[in-house]
Amino acid sequence: MEKKAQLYEGKAKKVFATEDPSLVIVSYKDDATALDGLKKGTIAGKGVINNKMSNYLCRLLEKHGVPTHFVKELNDRETLVKKVSIVPLEVIVRNISAGSFAKRYGVSEGIVFEEPTIEFSYKNDELHDPLINSSHALALSLATKAEIEKIKEYAFRVNDVLKEYFLSIGVKLVDFKLEFGRLADGTVILADEISPDTCRFWDAETNEKLDKDRFRRDMGGVEDAYNEMMKRVFGN
Amino acid sequence: MEKKAQLYEGKAKKVFATEDPSLVIVSYKDDATALDGLKKGTIAGKGVINNKMSNYLCRLLEKHGVPTHFVKELNDRETLVKKVSIVPLEVIVRNISAGSFAKRYGVSEGIVFEEPTIEFSYKNDELHDPLINSSHALALSLATKAEIEKIKEYAFRVNDVLKEYFLSIGVKLVDFKLEFGRLADGTVILADEISPDTCRFWDAETNEKLDKDRFRRDMGGVEDAYNEMMKRVFGN
Repeated sequence: MEKKAQLYEGKAKKVFATEDPSLVIVSYKDDATALDGLKKGTIAGKGVINNKMSNYLCRLLEKHGVPTHFVKELNDRETLVKKVSIVPLEVIVRNISAGSFAKRYGVSEGIVFEEPTIEFSYKNDELHDPLINSSHALALSLATKAEIEKIKEYAFRVNDVLKEYFLSIGVKLVDFKLEFGRLADGTVILADEISPDTCRFWDAETNEKLDKDRFRRDMGGVEDAYNEMMKRVFGN
Repeated sequence: MEKKAQLYEGKAKKVFATEDPSLVIVSYKDDATALDGLKKGTIAGKGVINNKMSNYLCRLLEKHGVPTHFVKELNDRETLVKKVSIVPLEVIVRNISAGSFAKRYGVSEGIVFEEPTIEFSYKNDELHDPLINSSHALALSLATKAEIEKIKEYAFRVNDVLKEYFLSIGVKLVDFKLEFGRLADGTVILADEISPDTCRFWDAETNEKLDKDRFRRDMGGVEDAYNEMMKRVFGN
């Protein structure tokens, strides 16, 4: 499958058309942004890690009944995926308080929730991705009621599967962001990446941060953290 | 029933103890604040109007199966109500886009929703009452699952009753804010006021604003709008 015209360039990925209109190629970059785009930088090797980790996790999720966009890993940085139109909702599932949740509600990081929480942000750069709830998303026709129910169901299933998986490799899954897309026939599937860019990972013993928060918060050891996660997942 | 010690003074109301520990007296002031407390002022006669209108609407809602804190109107500005501990969630129901909704999601005011929306804000001055959803409210133990379900059920019933009532007096109920409280035995009831301070009212024919937005937005005619609403409700 060959890369044709570039369809899109985002903060961390490029997307290319292929000869098959139902498939596109995602190409992962090492570029990183944070703090609503105010902070920009590069994390050497990130593109390779995020590509391989996302693909591994998509395969794991497919086995557990979550349909994903994954088709075939083409090389270290590029993957063939199903073409979708993205549902303009970022879906965030949280097991432990951290980041914007802790800040918004004035609580400390590290509170373990009895049940995972779910929230949506309206994907809209100009509006700075505001928090939105299901009834607002419906009122704005961002998704149908059936799509929202399906997305919630998948998001909690993703959490069940990934939480258990990451714990088996010594990592707490603190929270993560998912995006969903519609295939041409309207079917909703999991799209986008699952990586240290989109998840908070804490070492299960030490709570050391093994994710993009090291970049966001200028903590140093950013590449080491990504490499450590790669090692835990692929064992080398 | 006599006023004893003042228990609380808020932006628009004072609350006094009585000889009965399960009852308090609410006293409505003419003071008004807006824009997260940045704007302060006085709306002459507002205390009387909000007291009488709230009581009228509480009685109407009680008839339709919504339990409220209302016990007895004592005089123009003061009402005897059941003592509650407030659930720290502001409950906002919207029929038409306006205010913070329109701003947050980048849409114009006046979009009529197919179904009403509901949202919660976490009542916390220091955090500026941030938007919060049910799963976050549960995670922070602000309310139980059963309380949240009950609050949603009551909020939509309040909307059904009030929307129809206000239309009968030539007013569109655009959106409104409710607060709920717990009695000593844990029963959840509707508390706080329902007035032009807490609702958006638009004239059904002209869409003229008949509520606190005239104060928030320096539109003039604030007292006239409150008086007009009083006249529509009480017909004099």
